[in-house]
Order: sequence, then structure tokens, then C-alpha cells
Amino acid sequence: MSLIQPRTLKGFRDYLPAVMIPREQMMQTARTVFRSFGFAPIDTPVLEYLEILSGKGSDETDRQIYRFQDNGGRDVGMRFDLTVPLARFAAQHIGTLGTPFKRYHIAPVWRGENPQAGRYREFVQCDFDTIGTTSVLADIEAVAVINQLLEAIGFDRFTISINNRTILSGLLDQHGLADKTVPVLRSLDKLTKIGREKTHEEMCRVAEISSEQADAVLALASCDGEAEEVLAQLPAITSGNATAAAGIERLTEIYRGALASGVPARRLKLDVSIARGLDYYTGVIFETTLDDLPEIGSICSGGRYDNLAGLYTKQHLPGIGASLGLDRLLAAMEQLNLLPDASTPAPVLIAYFDETHRDDYLKMAANLRLAGIGTEVYPEPKKLGAQLKYADSRGFTAAIVAGGNEWAESRCQVKTLATKQGADVAYTHDNPDALVAAVQAILQV
Amino acid sequence: MSLIQPRTLKGFRDYLPAVMIPREQMMQTARTVFRSFGFAPIDTPVLEYLEILSGKGSDETDRQIYRFQDNGGRDVGMRFDLTVPLARFAAQHIGTLGTPFKRYHIAPVWRGENPQAGRYREFVQCDFDTIGTTSVLADIEAVAVINQLLEAIGFDRFTISINNRTILSGLLDQHGLADKTVPVLRSLDKLTKIGREKTHEEMCRVAEISSEQADAVLALASCDGEAEEVLAQLPAITSGNATAAAGIERLTEIYRGALASGVPARRLKLDVSIARGLDYYTGVIFETTLDDLPEIGSICSGGRYDNLAGLYTKQHLPGIGASLGLDRLLAAMEQLNLLPDASTPAPVLIAYFDETHRDDYLKMAANLRLAGIGTEVYPEPKKLGAQLKYADSRGFTAAIVAGGNEWAESRCQVKTLATKQGADVAYTHDNPDALVAAVQAILQV
Repeated sequence: MSLIQPRTLKGFRDYLPAVMIPREQMMQTARTVFRSFGFAPIDTPVLEYLEILSGKGSDETDRQIYRFQDNGGRDVGMRFDLTVPLARFAAQHIGTLGTPFKRYHIAPVWRGENPQAGRYREFVQCDFDTIGTTSVLADIEAVAVINQLLEAIGFDRFTISINNRTILSGLLDQHGLADKTVPVLRSLDKLTKIGREKTHEEMCRVAEISSEQADAVLALASCDGEAEEVLAQLPAITSGNATAAAGIERLTEIYRGALASGVPARRLKLDVSIARGLDYYTGVIFETTLDDLPEIGSICSGGRYDNLAGLYTKQHLPGIGASLGLDRLLAAMEQLNLLPDASTPAPVLIAYFDETHRDDYLKMAANLRLAGIGTEVYPEPKKLGAQLKYADSRGFTAAIVAGGNEWAESRCQVKTLATKQGADVAYTHDNPDALVAAVQAILQV
Repeated sequence: MSLIQPRTLKGFRDYLPAVMIPREQMMQTARTVFRSFGFAPIDTPVLEYLEILSGKGSDETDRQIYRFQDNGGRDVGMRFDLTVPLARFAAQHIGTLGTPFKRYHIAPVWRGENPQAGRYREFVQCDFDTIGTTSVLADIEAVAVINQLLEAIGFDRFTISINNRTILSGLLDQHGLADKTVPVLRSLDKLTKIGREKTHEEMCRVAEISSEQADAVLALASCDGEAEEVLAQLPAITSGNATAAAGIERLTEIYRGALASGVPARRLKLDVSIARGLDYYTGVIFETTLDDLPEIGSICSGGRYDNLAGLYTKQHLPGIGASLGLDRLLAAMEQLNLLPDASTPAPVLIAYFDETHRDDYLKMAANLRLAGIGTEVYPEPKKLGAQLKYADSRGFTAAIVAGGNEWAESRCQVKTLATKQGADVAYTHDNPDALVAAVQAILQV
């Protein structure tokens, strides 16, 4: 029989232990942070009725949905994000769950887009949302969650950029540009890329607004500096427009609340030029960048929306949420050498070379695990050299060696693999304390 | 615009927080146990080339594969188990990874079967395997992992039934029945259901064997009692056949090794009648049942196989593994009232009813989280009654109440929600110790 070629589909990938260990760790860290703020986990099916999924994102995401007819003749699709399933879920269950409802959802999504470097057709999204309240406290909390997430994952130098869309809305209104919001924002989105002059020119040409109007918009977008300075400048720039003033007040509350929640001021930036998702977000919006790798773009974005589930229910469900770019962050950590270089989740290997003592190795391993120390026993009685080579290549931290002599003398050797140094330690199954202490000392190095 | 009906597909379900919290907890427990034995996580794509998936399970699973053509015209399918992807993965990567290779994989799979009570078309599998070794140590370890898994999840009364398929093979060989293995095993599988007499009758009729041959097979299968008794009886029943003798020797090593690994004898049963998966398993096999709910069947099964990935590679990859029936176990825990009744992952709710102190509530929450206490702040300044009702319905354990007076006097009220009792506790942002201690005392009750 001829062999079938073992391969993955274009745009898909396997996760080998060396990458999967930190990836799983990151998901676990995210869960712990979400839970500590009272966000609860949910899960939804990968497959949904196609009518639930299609027409909810952009034309582009629509084309990218993996869709087919199931055996029952139903048109179905694989979810392309976690927001549409959340909207469907909320419409279906919010009567049971009640509001406010805080959920997180960490799960894969699929998009049949043309794969680029570092982008895959299957990737994990990591979302959290607070639904059913317009309270500023939920906005503040979202900032605190983002800060805590990145800190817990291991980052110190990052910037959370915050804006409130209503400030710009007020300004546009003030200058009679309310009906030109979309083309103006579309030009404004290019500001950092093409610069002030070209943006000004494009605004006048494409959005058909006057040079003075473009100046006013750009004055707002260029408002820069420390957060308190930005807040001080904004009232003058928006000329006291009531909508803008309310927006500035709210942005101020979010900023000060974030500080009260323990977010360091150095990580907060008020950036009135960011707009994100023209149609979806209606209030505060966030973007987060790594100070040492700004070029990878935002690794945690989100904002406030007016009505989550309007396509599925008449119940008005405002909310706020954000999404952590887990796979992008993982790639960044790889680039910054922040990932541990091990493909074993257990730090200790017990070598096994005296077959008559098999049950002793097993007992020793059980004792170490009881003390909370992850321990693997090499499964075959091979030569010690081969086993230590295996220990090195997998990235174990310590190895324990005991042959007939050692067992007879109630001791064993504990080797630190990085330095190749070994030490003799007393050990019996009834009193593993010295071994546990010796191993703990090595693991803490 | 008319609304789209929010609904899930037939055979699929949403997981709401009250169920998802313990489900996620169970997955996390499984990961922790797997890691402590040195099993490493991997992940594979949900979609595979159809040729990888089809023809690998039974005709039944073949029919159940969700399959379609993707936009690139490729025939693809959604995985129906984690074993076929592991075989493909191993064939593709074992050169890089080396052996022995120990992995776990916790992920959803899909089968378009007709949904029955408690069975869904999407469910999570939770597998662990050791590949590339025939060592008995790996067999023993699998028993130890199963024991540790169930213990860590919270079970005490369960039975791991162990058999070694080669004992029966030896016996069949001894009686000239080697070519009748499949029909004999098929009848034998019905023993517990239809009883000894009917099994005997069916064996003679369907497998066309003599009454004496059927007697010999049933004598083995009926061999019962304490493990050491079973081991003592087996040599006589198998009349000293060499294959059977080697099989008995191995079963003895597995049993004694499991005891050495800390598995209590009361949880181990040597059951030479279990056969499982006629073609796949070739050595030791396991089934695990809950002593208080045997009727739900095996909740963790597996065994040793000769060659994992023969369809994809010429490399011979023996291994051993088992699969935890996570969703079945969750249903069992629900039935046994072992699941906590909360739909919040944070135990503490801070009531928010004095808007001028919003930042104080946020700071207090940050302080509690710093002490490792999951804390939610109610997002809106509603009446206290409504907030406490919310706390009750979500299953919070403690609530903290502080209004203008309390803030002025550097104190707050801590309420135990189960008893409705409250206590005054000193609190300032700079010294939250008394509050932390008071809350910890409540949470430990």
C-alpha cells in the first residue's frame, strides 16, 4: 500500500511543544486575569448557521468564511471571529444570564484569506466584553484588564492608546461635517502613514471639505503630549461643542480611573487621532503597542459599541470589549527572546538504567510530583549518556541518577544540566525531603 | 429589517458560565497532571486534507466526517478524533522531535452523528500518548496518569480495569483459534450484557468453535477476584502457553508498578475479559469506571498499539495512550452534585453606589486582586438591593459595601452572602491588610 503524504493544509500549522508550551501558558495567564476581574468563560460552536455569520463582517470577511452544506442540507460556516457568535449568544441567552454580563472567550477562528508571513487561516482569538451597561466604570476596567494582561504575560514596556470617538464627532458636528464622517475618518486613518500635508490635501479633495475644516480636524488629531496636557488642550480645539465636551469629560474619567486602578501613567496615551472600525465603535476605543516592537501594530484593541446584537434581537445591548492578539504577541515574544527554550513542561528527568529498580524510579517520581515538582522518568533502561543527551535536547533543568550502588546506600545524584554539575543527596522513599530541597534549589536558579 | 433567529445547529450547544467554569477547570486540571508527568502540549489544525482523515476510523466515523471543498478546490474535513491527527503529526515531525515523544492534546472534534441525549456533534477530547517506546514503564505510567487525573478532578471512588490483549491471544493460539480471534472477541464483548450461557452459545454458532474451546475462552474471561488472585489463576487457565505467559508477566509488572507509583490497590482491577477496539490495540488496555455511576460506562480508556502512523510513514511507531471523556465526566459530576453552583469566576463583589467614590472602589478592587482575590466591581451606581440580588444570583461568596460614611471613617462592610451576615472592617488604600484577611476568612469557609 502506498503511503499518504503527511502534510497540513496551506495556511494552517501544527504547534510543536516548544511553541505550544508558551502559547498554552499565555492562554492560561489570560484566563487567570479575566477571572480575577469577574469575567466568566463561555464557549460557542465552531459551526454556525451561515445566515448568522454572513453579512456581519466586511465583504472581505464574508468571502473568507469556510462554508458548506452539512449532511442535513443546512448551509453552515465556521466562525471567522468571536464577536458575531457573542452577538448571537447574547441574543439567545441574555434573558437567562441577565445584565451586566461579563464574558471572555479564547478560541480559534478561521478565515480563508491568502496567507502572509506570520498570518494563518486558523488563529486563536482572545476576547473579553462587558455587555448591558454604558457605565464608564466598565470602560475604565477594560483599560485595567489590558494593562494586567500584558503585565502578567511578562511585558513592562507597552502603551495603551485611548480615544473617545465622540470628541471627533462633536468637532465634525461643530464644523458642519456630520454627514462627511466616513470619508473624513478614512483620510484621517492615513495620517501616520502619509503625513499631515497629504492627509490635508486628500481630505479637501476626496471628502470635499474646505481647507479650514481640514485644519480643524487635523488640529484635533495632532493634539499630542502628556495625557493631562492633551486633556487641557482639547476644550479649546473643540470650541466648547457640547458633544465634544461630554466626550472629553468621559475620556478624563477613563484616564483618571485607569490610574486609580493601578495602571502606570507611562503606559497610557490619549491619542485623539485613532479611529478604528468606522461603523462598529461608538465611544472609547483602544489600541496597544509594544514599545520595543511598535512595527507589529496593535496587540490588543477594542472599544465601546452601542448595540451588540441588533441583528438577532430587539433588546438593546451596549457594551465594551477588546481582543488580545495572542498569536501576534507570541511571535513578538519569540522575536524579543522572551520565550523559554524548552520542549518539556516537566523540569526534572529521572534517568532509568537499572531495570531491577524500575519501581523505585516510579516511587521517586511520585514523591517529587507530590512535592509539586514535574518529573518525567525516561521510559527505557538505556545508557546514561543517551538519557542525558535527551534531557539536554528537551531542555530539562535537572536530572536524577541512581544505580544499584546509590539505591543500596540510600542516596542519588542530582545533576544541574546547564552546568553539568552533580551533587550526592540522601534519599529514601519514606524521606524524600533532602531530594526535594536539592531539586527546588536548582529549579529556582 | 427582520431579525435573524439566534439559534445553534442541531447537535451543537453553547456553554454558559455555570457549566463552562467547571469545564475549563477540568481541562486545566488535566493539563497540570499531564505536565507533571512530562507530557507536552501540541495542537493541530481543525481542518485536514480529507485523504488524511477518511478511511482511518470505522465506516461509521467515515460517514460522520464534516467534509467539503475549500475555496482552493481542496477536499478537506474537520477532524473526528485526535488520534488520526496525532498519527499524521508524528509521521511529519517525529524526525525533529525524536523519541520517546510524550504529548497531550485537549481539543474539540466533530462527528455528524445523530445526536442522542447527552451526546453532541461537537465535543472535547482529552488525549495523552507516549510514542516510540514499547517499555512497560510507559504502560505503568499511563495507569498512574489516569489515577492522578481522576483524583485531581475530585474523584475518590473509581476503578481502572486493566487487561493485556496478548494473554487472550496466547490462549486462542493454544486452542488453535488464532484465525478466529475477531468473531470470538466480538462474542466475548457481549459477555457482561448477555451472560455466560448465551455468549457460549453464540461463540459456538457464529465463530464456529467447539464447546470445549468456548469453555476455555470463557474460563479466562470469567477469571475474577483480587488482582493477585487473578494473576495466580492465569497460568493454569492459559496452560503455560508462552505468549500468554509473557502477557501475564507484563500484566504483573504493570499492576505492581502502578502500586509503586502510588495508585491505591482498591482502584485497580485486572479484568481479562475486556477487549476494546479489535484491530487497533495490541497490548495492555484500560477502561475506567466511576464506582458510584458505573452505568455511564468508561470515562477514561486506552491501550498500547503497535504502529501509530503506518499509513503515513515507514517509520515504526509503537505507543500507548488513553483518552479522558471530559464531557461525559462533566455530566457525571453534575449528576453527583459535585459541581459548584456559581456563574462567576470571581468570589468577591464590590458594590458601587456612591459615584463620587468610583476611583476608590477601583483602587480597593486592585488591592484585593493584588492579594490574589478575584474581585468584580458592580459597573453601575444602582441601589444596593439590586446589587446584592445580582451577587446572590451569580453565586458570589462575599460582598463589600462602602458608602460616603464608611469612606470617611476608613472602613467598609464585608458581607458573607450565604449567611447575610456583615462585619465592619478597617480599610485604607495604603493598608488593605484587615480587609484582605477578612475576605480570605470568608472564602475559606
